[in-house]
Amino acid sequence: MKVDPFTLVILGATGDLTRRLLFPAVYRLFAKGRLPDLKVVGYAMEDWSTEQFQQHLEKNMQEFVPDFSQESWEKLKAQVQYVSGDLTPEHLKALEPVVQGNALFYLALPPQLFDDAAIGLGSVGLQNEQSGWRRLIIEKPFGWDLQSAQQLREKLHQHWQEPQLFRIDHFLGKETVQNLMVFRFANRFMEPIWNSANIAQVQITAAETLGLEGRYKYYDQAGALRDMLQNHLMQIFALTAIEPVSKWNADNLRQHKVEVLQSVRPIPQDRVKDFAVRGRYGAGEMGGKEVPGYMQEEGVPQTSRTETFAAVKLYIDNWRWEGVPFYLRSGKRMQQGYTELAVQFKEVPTQLFSGVEDLSNWLIFRMKPEERIDLVAYAKTPGLDLETRTVVLSTDISRQQEIDFTAYEQLIMDAAEGDQTHFLRFDEVEEAWRILDPILKAWEQGQPEEYASGSLGPNGQGRLMDHGHYWRSPEDD
Amino acid sequence: MKVDPFTLVILGATGDLTRRLLFPAVYRLFAKGRLPDLKVVGYAMEDWSTEQFQQHLEKNMQEFVPDFSQESWEKLKAQVQYVSGDLTPEHLKALEPVVQGNALFYLALPPQLFDDAAIGLGSVGLQNEQSGWRRLIIEKPFGWDLQSAQQLREKLHQHWQEPQLFRIDHFLGKETVQNLMVFRFANRFMEPIWNSANIAQVQITAAETLGLEGRYKYYDQAGALRDMLQNHLMQIFALTAIEPVSKWNADNLRQHKVEVLQSVRPIPQDRVKDFAVRGRYGAGEMGGKEVPGYMQEEGVPQTSRTETFAAVKLYIDNWRWEGVPFYLRSGKRMQQGYTELAVQFKEVPTQLFSGVEDLSNWLIFRMKPEERIDLVAYAKTPGLDLETRTVVLSTDISRQQEIDFTAYEQLIMDAAEGDQTHFLRFDEVEEAWRILDPILKAWEQGQPEEYASGSLGPNGQGRLMDHGHYWRSPEDD
Repeated sequence: MKVDPFTLVILGATGDLTRRLLFPAVYRLFAKGRLPDLKVVGYAMEDWSTEQFQQHLEKNMQEFVPDFSQESWEKLKAQVQYVSGDLTPEHLKALEPVVQGNALFYLALPPQLFDDAAIGLGSVGLQNEQSGWRRLIIEKPFGWDLQSAQQLREKLHQHWQEPQLFRIDHFLGKETVQNLMVFRFANRFMEPIWNSANIAQVQITAAETLGLEGRYKYYDQAGALRDMLQNHLMQIFALTAIEPVSKWNADNLRQHKVEVLQSVRPIPQDRVKDFAVRGRYGAGEMGGKEVPGYMQEEGVPQTSRTETFAAVKLYIDNWRWEGVPFYLRSGKRMQQGYTELAVQFKEVPTQLFSGVEDLSNWLIFRMKPEERIDLVAYAKTPGLDLETRTVVLSTDISRQQEIDFTAYEQLIMDAAEGDQTHFLRFDEVEEAWRILDPILKAWEQGQPEEYASGSLGPNGQGRLMDHGHYWRSPEDD
Repeated sequence: MKVDPFTLVILGATGDLTRRLLFPAVYRLFAKGRLPDLKVVGYAMEDWSTEQFQQHLEKNMQEFVPDFSQESWEKLKAQVQYVSGDLTPEHLKALEPVVQGNALFYLALPPQLFDDAAIGLGSVGLQNEQSGWRRLIIEKPFGWDLQSAQQLREKLHQHWQEPQLFRIDHFLGKETVQNLMVFRFANRFMEPIWNSANIAQVQITAAETLGLEGRYKYYDQAGALRDMLQNHLMQIFALTAIEPVSKWNADNLRQHKVEVLQSVRPIPQDRVKDFAVRGRYGAGEMGGKEVPGYMQEEGVPQTSRTETFAAVKLYIDNWRWEGVPFYLRSGKRMQQGYTELAVQFKEVPTQLFSGVEDLSNWLIFRMKPEERIDLVAYAKTPGLDLETRTVVLSTDISRQQEIDFTAYEQLIMDAAEGDQTHFLRFDEVEEAWRILDPILKAWEQGQPEEYASGSLGPNGQGRLMDHGHYWRSPEDD
């Protein structure tokens, strides 16, 4: 698709997100010829010149972009300028003369500033579409709970229309997550088995080996449930569970996701313990090195009750998923870093052959560190006896490890094309908060269970499992 | 399972089958300790001593058995003796003193001699089970058509009871064929997709690169339909299509196979051309070498109308398979030698994504030359556009190529244990003939279509295909 010429305005242009992910993605799109007529305006508090900004970007890209080419960068550099200012209308006015025609505003800012920025831009008329389209990209978190999310929406809507708003969940830009949809809806064999008659349980795990890494300001307010579960894992969950769409477009897809979220059985406020488990990493060993616990990390207040591990069990009360538990979990400082969606099929009704106890199949979408689809099946053990053994039908989806900013490339491209398929509609955000609000409320009391850094997470996570289910571990494979 | 001590009596002990397949299999079972108390009696016309027979076997095993061990052979050799004679009762009487207790008679003889041998053994009382069990193993062909098969059954039943008869189809001893059953009934995801709602067509191909190889006496009377289709391919066909059994045993399995064969829609005598195609190899090139056509092969009479390629389309009129064509074919001197069962799923009802024309999946059980299961699926093409590409979920079933006589090991072992699971019941044979009899009758007229050696077979095979179907070729992979 041909993209309109447009100006990308990055608010928070000197920050970490811009440096590590956003600008490398923009550069790569430009270098591939995907955004031939792009202009970039960096905007931030720092009193920099355009040249300083350009040097800052160049230095960082030399570090972060493996296929960086000086030649492409020289071409893009000529289109990059910098404007200094804060988020008050007085300062934002300075953008008016440099932003003409189509413009995409990217809020690469701390979440507390989203509303100020959106209102500021709106109050000087930059959202006005008379000379071309105007779009606003916001990063998570979209609020801190249901109520604050609704308040944020109100503020965004003061000046901006919903079709102008692009709420990014960068997981939706990932190859593997998009592949979930393609694999399910392009393969005939998927639909007949994709239901509660055949599926026993679903597990979605995003385990990180990293700890706080200095991000205490944001993270200690957020925690694992807000940082990972409410958005990324909830999106994978919804995509796994949606009904087939009749046409592939943003409206249908988002409508179907919302319906899944609306069908999630509410977690009773007095039974949160049966549906959610929290943990916090203690000291431990990672890769042979002693690491401190979360409470000993720099900047963490001694009153903190923030969880670094969250696990949630959800049921979907609809025809397709009645009775199938979906287990979602994410944690920091776990033994291994990996992201996967694992679907377990029920056992066959009769075990005709000997050799294994448990004849259930798994279909595993591995998203990180490698991108692969594995179908765990049973076959005959070679030899004279009729016994079964496990075999894995496997396919590598991408030969190379996905670079973090490729998801951003996808999403910037989509926003430039006005395609909201991979962006969240507000009601998705709202329903996700509605599901998790009872947990957030319960977790305002008490403390998370401690787990050793480098372990598989808190022991308590086992209590979520329905009879006969167990958490998969990296050692299962 | 512990096997009773028994005597294996090989009638036709100096022949090719004994030499190349049967005795190597017996030796391997013995060397593995599977048949510790085995005695072997070789019986044939040749006026050999036991020592000559032993030397003959030893020489051949040194040639054919990769893991031959002189030490094991010395142990087995002590249990091997030879008796010379023809199939008349007078001569067969000589077996009486050496065959005591349990005994397994293996007719490694030309098919014209099956009835003489069975009747001869019976008339001297060797089928009598007073001192131990007595079993009779017969190789295909079981008759030449429905009528002759029924006549053969009558003759076998003069002295032997049906439970004593072990009709071998060595395909049933193959790992891959048994794996068909395990894969289907040990994996939950198979049953919901294994029906006409989801499957478009099934193709069973056994292609050989070999030509006549001097076997004109047998082959020119048989042809591809009798030699491969009626038995081996029909068995794979029946196993593919059977309903689930509730217990895994010989009776249930064979009953279910017969039901499949009984449900095959009869081929109308006046429409054989729409359901069957025959071909005969002409001259051509195999591996860069000129090879003669079938009619130029040594020993082939100029009046021959024997087919070296046969393809048949079958429909099963039952709930599961209504409307699904099963295409079976086998040929000699084909471009590549391979055996596979390939199941094509229907297209998805809506193509949501672009990039391919045809979104149908294939599940392929590769049996030869390599043993592998491949699931052909669609996944997202890596990159910024939402397009699909083919990926193959694949698993190697056995690392090493199956040796021809491993199937014989399986079947001798089964017969020694009295397990008829992998042997044919007479009604299976009968139904298979009933299905093919109209074709045999039609092919008594006219001539097969010639195809070049080294090609994909006769052009006419395409006319069997239902709308939208095409024969898979080795190049498809």
